Amino acid sequence: MPELAYVNGSIMPIEEAVVPIEDRGYQFGDAVYEVITSLNGRPFMLDAHLARLERSMTELSFPHFDMRQIRAAVLKLFAEGALDRCGLYIQISRGVAPRKHAFPASTALQFIMTLRKIVPYPDEMRAGGVKAVTVPDLRWGKCDIKTIQLLYNVLAKQQALDSGAYDAIFVSTDGVVRESTSSNLFIAVDGILITHPLTRNILPGITRQCLLEISRECAIPCEERSFKTDALYAADEVFLSGTITEVMPIVEVDGRTIANGEVGPIARRLLRKLHDKM
Amino acid sequence: MPELAYVNGSIMPIEEAVVPIEDRGYQFGDAVYEVITSLNGRPFMLDAHLARLERSMTELSFPHFDMRQIRAAVLKLFAEGALDRCGLYIQISRGVAPRKHAFPASTALQFIMTLRKIVPYPDEMRAGGVKAVTVPDLRWGKCDIKTIQLLYNVLAKQQALDSGAYDAIFVSTDGVVRESTSSNLFIAVDGILITHPLTRNILPGITRQCLLEISRECAIPCEERSFKTDALYAADEVFLSGTITEVMPIVEVDGRTIANGEVGPIARRLLRKLHDKM
Repeated sequence: MPELAYVNGSIMPIEEAVVPIEDRGYQFGDAVYEVITSLNGRPFMLDAHLARLERSMTELSFPHFDMRQIRAAVLKLFAEGALDRCGLYIQISRGVAPRKHAFPASTALQFIMTLRKIVPYPDEMRAGGVKAVTVPDLRWGKCDIKTIQLLYNVLAKQQALDSGAYDAIFVSTDGVVRESTSSNLFIAVDGILITHPLTRNILPGITRQCLLEISRECAIPCEERSFKTDALYAADEVFLSGTITEVMPIVEVDGRTIANGEVGPIARRLLRKLHDKM
Repeated sequence: MPELAYVNGSIMPIEEAVVPIEDRGYQFGDAVYEVITSLNGRPFMLDAHLARLERSMTELSFPHFDMRQIRAAVLKLFAEGALDRCGLYIQISRGVAPRKHAFPASTALQFIMTLRKIVPYPDEMRAGGVKAVTVPDLRWGKCDIKTIQLLYNVLAKQQALDSGAYDAIFVSTDGVVRESTSSNLFIAVDGILITHPLTRNILPGITRQCLLEISRECAIPCEERSFKTDALYAADEVFLSGTITEVMPIVEVDGRTIANGEVGPIARRLLRKLHDKM
């Protein structure tokens, strides 16, 4: 039951996996990624993750790569690891070349993966909810592409933890609530779910999409539209969604208690239905 | 006279230099960098580069690192390479740790360098000037920190090349002209030099600072203030400044000829004075 790495076709222990220092992912952040989970040998939403990965590569004009090869490598690493509950991290960079901003004339894409056990969040977190803080959204303008331009996410997450919260929520200069450092965000108001529409400013989350579908199945009305911090503070429920996050209720934002401070029925229901699908 | 790499204390050929795939520079862009040139064994503006590097590390709350060690390693690599005209690239990341956004509890900073010959720009480029295009500034909000959050710079540089230009100039949503993909930008209007003030939206360029000092020595009036694209198009001179760029005149922006389309006297004079200081 090992944790493993994969580098351009070879599988090895994670500690042995290295890349050249002139990998463009390392010097320019010129790389895209995905995180895919698997429960009891069944990868969840594999096709959706691979489709998003392909879109990310296309958006950055990466050289063509056979997605069937990526798919086969992903399945092979899952099989070799044979872990009950695991997360597979894929990163593909534009390749290795002497440092120059412009695309290199011809390089082979660099393809690495890790497979690790997932340590589930403590039950109390999902049962009791977590705290969040809002921060200005200072990320770049192409957050819809899943790249490793993540330093601001890192700084915001750390700022949240330092202030005793679990996560930071990005808010635009005009007050629009976008998403958190590694999750999309939903609010529930009078029984209606609301989440930021798909624009360049948020990641098109796969769990976000799953939850929208589950909501339709459950006849919970959903709106994909912008809302501001006043709506966030006044919501009946607030929760995050993501591949590892699944559904994580937020019960306090910027020191203000959300509704009565308890996890709401919609978050609980959606999490249960999401687990049913895994 | 070799080109060399350095990884955490060891010097080696560049092709042999590798880092772990879980280096935070590789997965989060959680790293800072500098480029320092040396001519005939004399590094140019070394202290200014090291001071900026230290500031970048402090801004990102990196663990403490002894700057004297970095300085000693830089001088050692320059000496080992013994190249007449070379560029030294330093990159320091927060370290290696299993992938999680938050800062790891304790990691050693990862410190890599490369030393390469500089191929000088063809004389015609500096003598005749180059073309540029403007692009929206979609970079993150902390461009004053010299981090590897460079993917938008990469995309903009490639877009410029694809359109037959040499570089792309970032312009804010309200039309303010900031800098280019790896250089600061100056315009000259009626004998006065103008460049964007030091804010979070541009890099505090060391060559920019050198040119401001040279201008004072030459009694050329300088203003550090914002200006918009109309002023850029209408300027008497436009040029870029940077460590490798030095002074690069721009004679066309967005297909509009700047002044009479020839390199101006201020750019020529500043370049000559800059070379005198090297």
